Amino acid sequence: VRVAFLGPAGTFTEEALRASAPPGTLEEVPYETVFEAVMAVQSGTAERAVVPIENSLEGSVTATLDALAGEAQDVRIAAEVIHPIRHCLVARPSLGVDAVRRVVSHPQALAQCRRFLRERLPGAQLATAASTAEAVRSVAVSEGADAAVGAALAAELYGCSVLAAGVEDRPDNMTRFVWLAPEGEPPHGWPSKTSVVFWGFNDESPGALVDVLREFADRGINLTKIESRPRRVRLGHYMFYADLDGAADDPRVNEALAALRGRVETLRVLGSYPAGSAI
Amino acid sequence: VRVAFLGPAGTFTEEALRASAPPGTLEEVPYETVFEAVMAVQSGTAERAVVPIENSLEGSVTATLDALAGEAQDVRIAAEVIHPIRHCLVARPSLGVDAVRRVVSHPQALAQCRRFLRERLPGAQLATAASTAEAVRSVAVSEGADAAVGAALAAELYGCSVLAAGVEDRPDNMTRFVWLAPEGEPPHGWPSKTSVVFWGFNDESPGALVDVLREFADRGINLTKIESRPRRVRLGHYMFYADLDGAADDPRVNEALAALRGRVETLRVLGSYPAGSAI
Repeated sequence: VRVAFLGPAGTFTEEALRASAPPGTLEEVPYETVFEAVMAVQSGTAERAVVPIENSLEGSVTATLDALAGEAQDVRIAAEVIHPIRHCLVARPSLGVDAVRRVVSHPQALAQCRRFLRERLPGAQLATAASTAEAVRSVAVSEGADAAVGAALAAELYGCSVLAAGVEDRPDNMTRFVWLAPEGEPPHGWPSKTSVVFWGFNDESPGALVDVLREFADRGINLTKIESRPRRVRLGHYMFYADLDGAADDPRVNEALAALRGRVETLRVLGSYPAGSAI
Repeated sequence: VRVAFLGPAGTFTEEALRASAPPGTLEEVPYETVFEAVMAVQSGTAERAVVPIENSLEGSVTATLDALAGEAQDVRIAAEVIHPIRHCLVARPSLGVDAVRRVVSHPQALAQCRRFLRERLPGAQLATAASTAEAVRSVAVSEGADAAVGAALAAELYGCSVLAAGVEDRPDNMTRFVWLAPEGEPPHGWPSKTSVVFWGFNDESPGALVDVLREFADRGINLTKIESRPRRVRLGHYMFYADLDGAADDPRVNEALAALRGRVETLRVLGSYPAGSAI
């Protein structure tokens, strides 16, 4: 089975992929962007994809939501994995922490480790890279006193050492990743959760969104997430992405979705899948 | 009046600032991050700040929402400005479009000009910078055949030429910027719109969000935006950011906000201000 993932090799996405799949059974194929990884499943180039969808500190990964609501019409969420983002300070094996003069990573990773960098490496220059994995790859071949902030997996893959692990300011930094599959494939396990996206209210009154949400509330269906995203037409036009408790073929959920369909221009069920738990 | 803005000099934020303020009356002070610009008003270092809050293609600027809902407790939205994002291909005055071998910009700007770059500069190498303004600054002092994608203002400030204007794929690319002021300052003009953020439902039933939104709908108050953001505690805990029609001291809005206060742990009114129109 070919699995597309947000690359390059050694990202937190690949860590999550490996943490949630039997080792040695999959061919892992890195893609440069979330959009390309999702579209690999849409086009049939890959049978599965793993991409991040939401982080506890940064919020939704909008590229994933936008791809699922947009071009990837025949792709569904088959499973979710909640994976801790444990940042490591990584360098060539010969370098000690106190010798580090420059730290490179994705800007978000540097921001998430601000306290560690300030306290342990106050004089180090900070430099940005396109991803944490790319940062580790660059220090593996660097001649200078460079370290990277990235995943333990990246250190392993690029022959580097972990100088310090868990250097993030907040230990509760978790990312929710999703496994994507072509429409029609069975979910990975027993579905207990459904993701949907909808847009275009038939009734443009102030209460239109409320009426839509009541289709769930009145049936006792809990929404675990609701998020608005621009429809990319003009400011003020939104689509709504929601996660709800229950599978799409549960009678109550099925009834709510049928009612919703009468209220909006487009409703897309992005998948029913087992609710993931933190590892 | 000192105005903090998301710098460096020559960003689209500075373009929006200049487009919405009388020239020559303000001292413009660039800050490296949205958070620092917002906090400059909170700390009294600046009297005003201008920061982006939402883009028609990319969605909300989460750093702005998070700062207003978080540490910047005494900062309010005083006005909004809707400004077109018109990307320009910029280089040193001696360079022609066809001589360009490398194009540098913020990754989002490069993505927004993908078609132009593919069709007009198919062989050019793409490189990333921390901001469009930083990209223009770097090509101004570069010796190579480098161009940047950025604002016309940046070309002017760094002594570069605009080789091509309006190189974005989508001409409807607009950003909504906000003027921020200390609490207690009057709004810039007649307020017709209010921004709020709230979290922590007193009633944890499936219908809690619906009940909250009904406080507006039942009073005929239109929500022009609703967005969920992580509370940064753990996955699945959200705060809700909403824009609504009407000033906070309109009787109906005032009543709805009072009712909302009884339903949530925290409600913060981020400001009432005139609704901006596209320029």
